[in-house]
Formats: sequence, C-alpha cells, structure tokens
Amino acid sequence: MTEADVRAVASRARAAALDLAPLSRAAKDAALQAMATALRGAHADILRANGIDVAAARTEGVGEQLIDRLTLTAERIEAMACGLEDLAGLADPVGEIVRGYVQPNGLQISQVRVPFGVVAMVYEARPNVTVDAAGIALKSGNAVLLRGSGSAYRSNEVLVRVLSEAAAKSGLPADAIQLVPGLERASVGFLLKARGLVDVIIPRGGAGLINYVVENSTVPVIETGIGNVHVFVDASADLDMAERIVVNSKISRPSVCNSAESLLVHADIAAEFLPRITSALQVAGVVVHGDEHFAAVNEQVRPASDEDWEREYLSLDMAAKVVSGIDDAIAHIRRWSSGHTDAILTRDLDNARRFVSRVDSAAVIVNASTRFTDGGEFGFGAEIGISTQKLHARGPMGLPELTSTKWVVYGDGQTR
Amino acid sequence: MTEADVRAVASRARAAALDLAPLSRAAKDAALQAMATALRGAHADILRANGIDVAAARTEGVGEQLIDRLTLTAERIEAMACGLEDLAGLADPVGEIVRGYVQPNGLQISQVRVPFGVVAMVYEARPNVTVDAAGIALKSGNAVLLRGSGSAYRSNEVLVRVLSEAAAKSGLPADAIQLVPGLERASVGFLLKARGLVDVIIPRGGAGLINYVVENSTVPVIETGIGNVHVFVDASADLDMAERIVVNSKISRPSVCNSAESLLVHADIAAEFLPRITSALQVAGVVVHGDEHFAAVNEQVRPASDEDWEREYLSLDMAAKVVSGIDDAIAHIRRWSSGHTDAILTRDLDNARRFVSRVDSAAVIVNASTRFTDGGEFGFGAEIGISTQKLHARGPMGLPELTSTKWVVYGDGQTR
Repeated sequence: MTEADVRAVASRARAAALDLAPLSRAAKDAALQAMATALRGAHADILRANGIDVAAARTEGVGEQLIDRLTLTAERIEAMACGLEDLAGLADPVGEIVRGYVQPNGLQISQVRVPFGVVAMVYEARPNVTVDAAGIALKSGNAVLLRGSGSAYRSNEVLVRVLSEAAAKSGLPADAIQLVPGLERASVGFLLKARGLVDVIIPRGGAGLINYVVENSTVPVIETGIGNVHVFVDASADLDMAERIVVNSKISRPSVCNSAESLLVHADIAAEFLPRITSALQVAGVVVHGDEHFAAVNEQVRPASDEDWEREYLSLDMAAKVVSGIDDAIAHIRRWSSGHTDAILTRDLDNARRFVSRVDSAAVIVNASTRFTDGGEFGFGAEIGISTQKLHARGPMGLPELTSTKWVVYGDGQTR
Repeated sequence: MTEADVRAVASRARAAALDLAPLSRAAKDAALQAMATALRGAHADILRANGIDVAAARTEGVGEQLIDRLTLTAERIEAMACGLEDLAGLADPVGEIVRGYVQPNGLQISQVRVPFGVVAMVYEARPNVTVDAAGIALKSGNAVLLRGSGSAYRSNEVLVRVLSEAAAKSGLPADAIQLVPGLERASVGFLLKARGLVDVIIPRGGAGLINYVVENSTVPVIETGIGNVHVFVDASADLDMAERIVVNSKISRPSVCNSAESLLVHADIAAEFLPRITSALQVAGVVVHGDEHFAAVNEQVRPASDEDWEREYLSLDMAAKVVSGIDDAIAHIRRWSSGHTDAILTRDLDNARRFVSRVDSAAVIVNASTRFTDGGEFGFGAEIGISTQKLHARGPMGLPELTSTKWVVYGDGQTR
C-alpha cells in the first residue's frame, strides 16, 4: 500500500461525489433500502468474515470489551439494516435553502445546502460504524472513505463490498462507498494529506486516535467525542432530583462520552448532600474519587488528585469536589472540562442563566441528565458523532452537519 | 520572540475571550464607537508610524502597488473609523437562536450562537485589515490576535495600542485586541501550533501565505480568497448582456479575487461572439490569452496553455476558450476552477439549473457579474474574507461566520 494507492481511492471517491451531489432523495432512499436488503441477504458472509476477525483478536489477547465491540451477531446485522431503513425515512438535507432574499438591485441570493463531497471516517473496532457512516454519508450526498481498525478489516471489507454493490445496482456510483486500503498507520497518514481530494475527516475513537488525526491532517477535521463531563449541584437544587440526575448521568452507560465524570457540590449543602450522594453512587457500584470533604464521608472514597479532575474515566468512577459557589464551579469547569457537556442542577434563575452563559461547552444542561447530549435524544434521527470543536459543527452531528452550503445568485444582467 | 511569548499572548486572549462572550451588544457597540473616536484622535501618531513603515518599504525597493496598500492617509483613517461605527449599527450575532424546540420528554433544546473565543488573523501589508478585523472580532464577541506583515509592523503597533486602550476604557478586557509578537515567520508558526488557545485562524493574502497556514496549522483554519473565476457564455445568452457582464467581471477591479480570469464560449455562437468580446476586452485594455479559436480573431490574442487555465491573473489578462456545450464548460470548470465563483450567462432554464447544480463553487451566478460575490453586495454589512473551503463557512463571511454555537438544554429532572 503506497500513498498513490490511497490517493487513487480518494480520486475515485471525488469523481463519484460529483455524481452523487445532484441525486434526488428518492434515488438515495432507494439505494439505502437496497443496502439494507443486501446486508440481510449477506449475513452469512458477514458473520463468517467477522468470525475470523474475532478469532484473530482473541489470539492476539485483545480484551473482552474490545472483543464485544468487534463482534457481529444476526441481531446486530439486523439492527444495522434497520438503521439504513431509518435513514431512508429522514428528510434530505441537500437542497435546503438556509437563507434566501432579494437585494435592492434585484439579485436573488440563496444559500443552499450541498454535500461536502468526500467525507473520510477514521474509527476504531466497531464494524457497525462502517454501515452507519456509509448510510449517513450517502443520505447527505457524500462519497465516503472508511478507515476502520485493522482488527475489523475482514468484516469491513465484506460490509463495504455488500453495501457498494447494492448501491451500484440502484444506479449510484460504485465508488461512493470505499474502504481505505492498507492496515498500517501510514495509510491513515496518506489520507490525512489528501487535501483537495478529501473535504473533511471525522475521527471517532479514543483520545490517541483523535489527537493523531488533528495534529497530522492538512484536510479539515471535525474533532469528536472526548467527554470530561461535569454536574454541578447548586445550593438551591432539589436534592431528590439531584440524586437521580447525578446517578443517571454516571451509571446509565459509563463507557460513553456523555456520561458524567466529575461531581461538584455547593458548600452550603455539603453537610446534607455529601453522605447521601456518596452512598447512592457507591450502592450503584461507583468508586468515588473525592476531595477532603468527600473523603471524610466514608472510607470507600478514594482521595482525588488533579489527574482525577482531568480524567475521562469511561468507567464506574467519579471525581467529586465541594466548591464554594457557582463561580468556583464555573472556574473548575473552565479549567478541566473537555467542552463536551456540563450540567447545573439548581432552582435559582440567576445561577442557571449565569452557568449557561459562562460555561463554554458544546452542550450546557440545566436540571437534566448529561446523557441527553446525543443525536437521537436531540431528535436528529441519525448521528455521526459529537463534535467538541467550534468550527462547522458543535455537539451532536446529524445529516445537516455533513453538508456545506453554496451561494446561488440569479440576476438579469447586473454589473458593478 | 520565543514560542512562550506567542503562547503568553494567546493565553491572555483566551482569558479575555471568557469575559467578552457574555457582553451585551450595547457594551460592544459603545466600545466600537470609542475605538472610532480614538482612531480619529490618534491620526497624527498613526500617520507618523505609517510614514516610517512606508519609508522603510521604499528603501527596500518594494513595488508601488504594495506601497499603495501599505500607505495610510487621513481619508483612509477616517474610512477605518467609519467602518467601526458601521459595525456598531449591525445586529449582534451572539445569542441568536439558530434552532429551538421541545422534545416529547419535555426537554427544551436550543442551539444558540456564541463567539468562537479567540480568532487569529494572519494577513499581508494593508493596515486597514488590522482595524477591520479587530472591529469584526469584537462585535462578534471574540478576542483577536493580529499578525500582519512585517512591513506594516509600526503602523499595526500604533493601531492596536489605540484600539485596545479605547476598548479598555469602555470596560472591555485590554487583551481583547492584541498583536502577535515577532516579525519572523517563526512567530506565525508558533501561532499555528497554539491549538487549545486559539479557536480559528483566518489567513488573508496570497496563495503562498494561505498554503503555508493550511499546511502547518493544527488550529482549525478557514481558507480564504483564491479566485480562479469563470464566465461561461451559453449558446442562448443575450449577447449584449454577455458582453457587459464579461467585461465588468474582468475589468471593474482586476486585482480582487471575485474578478473573472477565464471566459468560456459555446461553440454555436463563437463565430458571432468571439470577434465582438475579444475586441471589447482589448479595447478595455485586457490581454486575451486564447485557444486556437480566439487566436484566430486577431494577432493581439496570445496563445493559451494549461498555465493560463490554472492561473489567477489578478490583472488585465483573461484566458479564453471555446467549449462544445454546457457539459464541456462544466468539465473545464471542474478541472480548473478554484471553487470561488463561476457564472453562466444563458436564457435556457435547463442549462441554468444544470450549471447551478453541477458546478461546485462557493458562489454560482446566473446572468450577473462575478464581482457580486462579496459580503457588502450580499448585504452582510461587514466582511472578514471569502471562504473557499467547505467546512464552517463558504463564500463571503460576515459576523455570524465568526461565531460557533452551543446547545442549551433546560429540563425538570429528566433522566435516561
């Protein structure tokens, strides 16, 4: 695999993108339906290839959590097929007029959504991302280059073959959905330098992968998903509600980026709330890493250091600290938050407004679980990831976030 | 000047940005008015510093065009002051609710415009960009880092001092407007690596500068302004209108990015239109670089090569070619256009629609001059540049393009 191989694949994607852009929604939806049918029809091939990937991963001694992410089952294939059908039911973002008006000189100006062109996804083990990303890219009129991890290469190869054959039979360009060749990290490196051929790269995975992409890419990147998420319990919070929300934010799915990692409690309610929330978290299996106030609650609390304030545990661990008031909470969040999601629990209007205006995160939540920062929960129907950068898209990204715009101007002879 | 110096300036900007974000429009407009007044009051200091810059540039044998861009006059200072006052009259993009709705579970979700935080501008000689950029950044709630060219350093130093002192007297953070220290290219390099401190970098200038920034930055970049702009005269075009538009697109201001560089003419009208447009362009002082059809018109036409199709002349030169039809024109544009602005002149509805849907440029114009791709002409009131990339902003960028968004979610105890 050489740089020329990667660029050749990207060039074919670029050519396919030109034909995808003007497609009607009906044509794209028919292809999505055909892809779903093809996935179901090919489930034996898919499971066979996936079985080889899983066996190889076991031989290499990969951990059970990763094996679980890598493993496909009949149910998971059915879920992927349903995901494609759901996409067919969503509105087409392409062609939407974002702004439109007539200037005094009679020029009719409109800003219209258009596909990016070529979208590249760089991600880790889960083969379902292959199908999700292919479907979302196609629905938004983009050609897609998929670069999953080496451990899922055989699974991804079969999935992409099945999907692109189905798309081609529906009359779409066969190069609309392609795998990036090569298993070495170098192939990602070549992709990152394919500026002009690739319009945007979206990395999905751990901090190491995301930082590698951000630091090495000349193609524009949308950074996703590192979540050091805070919940601040203000002095005026409803403590029953606070207990429910803190526990839900932490335990409902600890391995995902919108789970809470740090708890901040107003000093004025510490005496009442600390024993209660510490016990509720511990009963739910959470290891609390606390400051001196939390450490005084019971012996199970482990002492917290700066590492705990900084860490995205993605596990049943939670850092916990008493703060002197809302500004102390905001200062802590500004210092340590990854800018994904931060929440305040309060009944004080001024404090709610102050927190919302002064915490600079992709999502700021008042009196609800941090777990709601999610494309599905926001009603998008499909989600490609959660952006933690400020350029282009911030927070959950749905179909419109996979589009750009162009300006269309109609005149009748105007000159300057 | 070390990397630490540049990072120190960026850190101060970051701190200032946190205080700028929640400011009211009234506070920002008062600061803009104060900045305008201060500029007028300091015109003697500004002209003195600028005189030293201009004299130094002359000693170095800099060309007259660059000297003109570098030179400030009382009128130009007045124009800069008026520009700041105009900004005060524009709506504040911060706080605008882009989308807002209530989910079935009662969560109130809104996507709200917020400032980026810290915006860096890297640009060439013109000192008026210093004032424009400072004003636009401040109005959109951003701290700004300004890195103009070394030849304007003394002018920029005085301008930034005057502006930031005026802003500080109005109660804004003094570090809201800062010059990046150092004249060496290394200082730009340090800025490009200040990811986490700087939210976006906007380069404005020639292709060399823009490519340097794009290839070396880990901070997200908005690419601006390379314009290899085409006008396609279809067989059905009104030829009187076509002549007016082609000439206007070329000559009204040849040094700017929205000026036309290439003319494509449908073969069916070549016999009639080629002599006429060639002569009209030549009478206006344009050197036509033509294919064999144009070369046959008269001896003043110079033969065109691929270099001409590719080039952004920014001068009274125009490449010219006969194409066999609309698809040939689209193919030529896809091959050579920089994706800034391309125009079709036609009376055929199908061709207008085909061109609009198949030419993938920031602006696609039907029957008007390419010179209309401009923030002022689009009615934005202020323009920070013209983006030729697809991420975040495409085409002319006004105040909203200098903002990001955040999601604000209000609940009453919802959990997942």
